[in-house]
Amino acid sequence: MSYKGFATASAIAFALALSVGTGAAQTAVKDDFKPSSLNQPGQEYPQVNSQGYARFRVMAPDAKSVAVTLGLGGSGGTVLTKGADGAWTGTTTGPLDEGFHYYHLKMDGGVFNDPGTQNYYGSVRWESGIEIPAHDQDFYALKNVPHGNVQQILFNSPSTNTQRRAFVYTPPGYDKDQSTRYPVLYLQHGWGEDETAWSVQGHENLIMDNLIAEGKAKPFIIVNVYGMTNDVKFGKAFSFDMKPFQTVLVNELIPYVDANFRTLADQPHRAMAGLSMGGMETKAIAPANLNVFSRIALLSGGTFGPEDVTPDFKAKVKLVFVSFGSREIPDGKTGFPGAPKIDPKANIEALKKLGINAYFYVSPNTAHEFLSWRRSLHELAPVLFKD
Amino acid sequence: MSYKGFATASAIAFALALSVGTGAAQTAVKDDFKPSSLNQPGQEYPQVNSQGYARFRVMAPDAKSVAVTLGLGGSGGTVLTKGADGAWTGTTTGPLDEGFHYYHLKMDGGVFNDPGTQNYYGSVRWESGIEIPAHDQDFYALKNVPHGNVQQILFNSPSTNTQRRAFVYTPPGYDKDQSTRYPVLYLQHGWGEDETAWSVQGHENLIMDNLIAEGKAKPFIIVNVYGMTNDVKFGKAFSFDMKPFQTVLVNELIPYVDANFRTLADQPHRAMAGLSMGGMETKAIAPANLNVFSRIALLSGGTFGPEDVTPDFKAKVKLVFVSFGSREIPDGKTGFPGAPKIDPKANIEALKKLGINAYFYVSPNTAHEFLSWRRSLHELAPVLFKD
Repeated sequence: MSYKGFATASAIAFALALSVGTGAAQTAVKDDFKPSSLNQPGQEYPQVNSQGYARFRVMAPDAKSVAVTLGLGGSGGTVLTKGADGAWTGTTTGPLDEGFHYYHLKMDGGVFNDPGTQNYYGSVRWESGIEIPAHDQDFYALKNVPHGNVQQILFNSPSTNTQRRAFVYTPPGYDKDQSTRYPVLYLQHGWGEDETAWSVQGHENLIMDNLIAEGKAKPFIIVNVYGMTNDVKFGKAFSFDMKPFQTVLVNELIPYVDANFRTLADQPHRAMAGLSMGGMETKAIAPANLNVFSRIALLSGGTFGPEDVTPDFKAKVKLVFVSFGSREIPDGKTGFPGAPKIDPKANIEALKKLGINAYFYVSPNTAHEFLSWRRSLHELAPVLFKD
Repeated sequence: MSYKGFATASAIAFALALSVGTGAAQTAVKDDFKPSSLNQPGQEYPQVNSQGYARFRVMAPDAKSVAVTLGLGGSGGTVLTKGADGAWTGTTTGPLDEGFHYYHLKMDGGVFNDPGTQNYYGSVRWESGIEIPAHDQDFYALKNVPHGNVQQILFNSPSTNTQRRAFVYTPPGYDKDQSTRYPVLYLQHGWGEDETAWSVQGHENLIMDNLIAEGKAKPFIIVNVYGMTNDVKFGKAFSFDMKPFQTVLVNELIPYVDANFRTLADQPHRAMAGLSMGGMETKAIAPANLNVFSRIALLSGGTFGPEDVTPDFKAKVKLVFVSFGSREIPDGKTGFPGAPKIDPKANIEALKKLGINAYFYVSPNTAHEFLSWRRSLHELAPVLFKD
């Protein structure tokens, strides 16, 4: 199976180019910088101020050049300058978008991580990360509420002849009430990321814990597994062969999860969703396996239109959810350069008219980044298994 | 409570100084280098050859100096040299000890990680890691056997006013057989590490999975939590105040685990162990809480002697286990510089004569590093809850 759908790798690359920070440069930078919440223990830098500016400091007295790949859109990053103490410092020329950003150092012609902060798997490498506090960060804050667990599982995969890793979020109370069974969402990361993304930078567990504590979502299980299509070079995305991944997911992982967790092991209670490339995978795999999945969500990873609504689709799909960051669709349209543009909101409205239970969401003032996807999960979870 | 015992921070610092690699330099370095098993996806360096030499390669054309903190004992590391392609390369002057080693780059006067490999929390920072394949690595290999899960839990800690993280290994079959209850080992990391150490670089889950599959150990639960004494500067270790950590462990974490997992929630089925500083914590906390713990293990973290065997200790302690890496006790003795040396093996023999169920183990040809502790867990697990 080769994926020929709309939400292609090129579209994703285009969205990535639109990515971090589009605010205009400001003259008055407030002097209230604090260490980023993602810093390593005891590390003072990088820092963030109340306006969303980021400030970096890297000790390397003998370096010839140090830059950070994070800055305003199109600027190519932030060049650091060396002080008398041998530390290289620099501040972004304007505020960054709220939320989580990957970055790294370009130093002396090589690529390194900022020793001040923790690492997150993105761009097929462990990257540095920084968090610009979002005005709505409370929905993924670590609070004194009942917590679910994130379980690392290892399952046998005959098709790849490996023992493979996945993460399973089990909701609060899962271990105590042995009579309850739960629906399951299979939730995929994006290109360059892996199965750690949703529980680490995505905060899927905290988003669910908080929604459940507030009575806004019914508990369900979430499963994250590596979407092996990362192994294909990005430029060849048009010919992504999703069959090996589909085999692992549908024939190996799902049976393992259903055998080892208290799932509601049927199509009405099983969903698939993904961000970016994970959305491409979802659109390729879920509609082709409507005996397995009934609920489908694409997060910055394409859309569904009337052309997708076959009789089988109409009979078996119980929910469609499509979302974007607002900066990905500045004119309300999505599409890769040179191809016809599509209005995803109009598409979802058309689906509703065809009788599909469909939702559309746009994350305000965010790009192709994790705050868009945290918010998308927060919007999706309350409705995912409702009808 | 201040800990005044024998296995002090100075002893640990001394052991660290003895640490990596003591093999003599060899003339014929075999040209069979392969990427380390810990490398990031697609990364060719660092590499290891069949003799245990490590070779590094870091791209940084404009750097002034690049060195690696890994080399033969006392050498201070391996200095890299720049090639015509702008890459800095270098090979250790002799074979390193088998097993896992932390390291980092010293580059242009700063501290950075090797972009080729993954990161592991040690030395109060995320360090680079390399693995020299051990001749006995099979016991912690990822195999096609039934696997337990490693669960991230978040528990409420009123004493610190935080939600704290711990990891819980539940053995294979834990979810399927709801009638079985399990003993629990509380297993602590060392100084500079955190609650991730035992399940990541320690492979506690794979060691247990394999032992259980071979019928060599009965299943038990393992819990790893952050030993907060890291927050105290290393030089002040003599006055480590363990009370805040003891409160979190005994009053908050243990009740949470007993309420949320199917434990055998009594003293005979509860053990505490730790490596290095975690051993110090164990020796301070377990004997002071013999209504909570019955089995006590110190891994490169001190020893027990006849002076520890009070009537209460003799009545309530069901197992004592002490282990070291052979390079930590080259003359069979342990102790910090300037203090009287102690023979831990003789100490354990003395305990046996006093009627204590005691074990002593030395890991061959390893120092104050994780292969010593992987092997120690492998020796401990079969006997821990046997008698």
